Amino acid sequence: MEFLTAYQKLVADSLKHLNQGKSPEGLYQPIDYLLDLGGKRLRPVLVLMACEAFGKKAEAALPAALVVEVFHNFTLMHDDIMDKASMRRGAQTVHEKWDINTAILSGDAMLVQAYIFLNGYESKLFQSLTTLFSKTALEVCEGQQYDVDFESRDDVRIEDYLEMIRLKTAVLVGCAMQMGAAVGGATSKDAQQLYLFGEQLGIAFQLQDDYLDTFGEAASFGKRIGGDIAENKKTVLVHLALRNSTENQQNELQKWLSETPKDETEKIAAVTKIFKETGADEATLSLVQQYTQQAFNALEKVALNLEMKQRFVAFGNWLMQRTH
Amino acid sequence: MEFLTAYQKLVADSLKHLNQGKSPEGLYQPIDYLLDLGGKRLRPVLVLMACEAFGKKAEAALPAALVVEVFHNFTLMHDDIMDKASMRRGAQTVHEKWDINTAILSGDAMLVQAYIFLNGYESKLFQSLTTLFSKTALEVCEGQQYDVDFESRDDVRIEDYLEMIRLKTAVLVGCAMQMGAAVGGATSKDAQQLYLFGEQLGIAFQLQDDYLDTFGEAASFGKRIGGDIAENKKTVLVHLALRNSTENQQNELQKWLSETPKDETEKIAAVTKIFKETGADEATLSLVQQYTQQAFNALEKVALNLEMKQRFVAFGNWLMQRTH
Repeated sequence: MEFLTAYQKLVADSLKHLNQGKSPEGLYQPIDYLLDLGGKRLRPVLVLMACEAFGKKAEAALPAALVVEVFHNFTLMHDDIMDKASMRRGAQTVHEKWDINTAILSGDAMLVQAYIFLNGYESKLFQSLTTLFSKTALEVCEGQQYDVDFESRDDVRIEDYLEMIRLKTAVLVGCAMQMGAAVGGATSKDAQQLYLFGEQLGIAFQLQDDYLDTFGEAASFGKRIGGDIAENKKTVLVHLALRNSTENQQNELQKWLSETPKDETEKIAAVTKIFKETGADEATLSLVQQYTQQAFNALEKVALNLEMKQRFVAFGNWLMQRTH
Repeated sequence: MEFLTAYQKLVADSLKHLNQGKSPEGLYQPIDYLLDLGGKRLRPVLVLMACEAFGKKAEAALPAALVVEVFHNFTLMHDDIMDKASMRRGAQTVHEKWDINTAILSGDAMLVQAYIFLNGYESKLFQSLTTLFSKTALEVCEGQQYDVDFESRDDVRIEDYLEMIRLKTAVLVGCAMQMGAAVGGATSKDAQQLYLFGEQLGIAFQLQDDYLDTFGEAASFGKRIGGDIAENKKTVLVHLALRNSTENQQNELQKWLSETPKDETEKIAAVTKIFKETGADEATLSLVQQYTQQAFNALEKVALNLEMKQRFVAFGNWLMQRTH
């Protein structure tokens, strides 16, 4: 995936010192701090890829790519407050380094800045991009609210969970693809088809994240293995385990997920064992495959030559083979 | 100002149960709760007035009016968190009735919803309205940050203070006027001139608010008289008093504004006395007049017939003669 590096660099260079010299510093410095922490920049890369696939230069879609990346980081800034997270990408979160009020207000400014990147597009394109972005942004808020709601509910079905991650994570990936395609000059049918590709891939990505949190390689995952279990998160593994468990297994799982022992090692081991015994690990992987396949099926219907499609397939496969 | 009532009703009716039936309720109910608390709806009324002044029906500008009102309420929802305010319009604030996370996320959704109201405008108009709104929204964030910064600074000049209230309060009034004019079909020169009218009127409005907090009529002001003094706020009265005080007065004022006595009655009386002795009360009123006059001067240059201009003058005078 060598071509990724060039795209990533284009995005990173544009984001570097985005707000340098702007006043008030108390508003803009926290934004640049978070943006400069890096990250894989996969969403904006997809915008650029989609644009190029339809024959325009990646640079034409750079403003749209920045919308998606700055918006994503806005959600991180506010979500980290809500989750009381103290670390992000190996550094202090904004509300930890400054304070909650700063993280609220700088986040608000980021959301507005995301919109502003689109200003330079010709008005018809501007309208379709802005409208799509607004719809997506509102859905992401809805997804976050469902995520919060589900933590205190016991009656969440796996369908509800899948819809939650679609809203919270996947629609932004779909939006990235559709924006890039639209800037690249795709027909609206093709752009919408690429939205579906991104959306289904986004769901697969998030399900795989759930899997890797328990079954990933500790060295490369970057987070503590079993973190979701320790925090009693009802990931797809829990949903699938509960669906396919004996009464004993069910009781044991519920018991572990209602406790917060000081030493989590035993708990993580026990719950991991139940995930394996109930086949939740394999079932999750096959869901990941199913959504990846649905993504590829959507891609199939787009009027692009084989070479272009192969790049997206390569990207999808690369994303789904990660171990961290 | 009878015509105000009809405009206010149009706005209030459109906002009533804006998000009824939408899911998740945890996201949308707090939005409708805050919007249903009411308020004078002066900003959206200005949008409608400006539109009608140029010959289009008020209804044409209703979406733009809702942008301004929903955005304003978004800032209230987030500012109330930052200010730890427990009451708003005689009712609990959102973060008090629900919690801080709810007020953050519902506020975010409101900001996005504000943008969405514009979706239906024709694309050229859509672009100019959206661009103006984004610029304004970012300036309001900047103004809020300056307000926070100034609380812990001792070197704030009156010019800085005036720039802060311009950003925090006045640009949104200017935006309201320009949006309405643009929807009404005004030339961009006229629309910008009406922006200036709104902006200068907005500054006058905020300065008068500072004045009324100390010198308003207790019965009708709705807030406790002297609240700003009790909270050691560096309003325009403080700036003007410090500028025109003897060393003794200066020391006494500084002393009072660094204390937080349990019984505030003596403090409020003493500081009010200094405001009068230094002529800060009269100086504030003449600043209010100066900005009101600048607003009327801007209005003078707009290509509208006398009758239309008179409506804005009547509105301005009505606003500036309020005692609460």
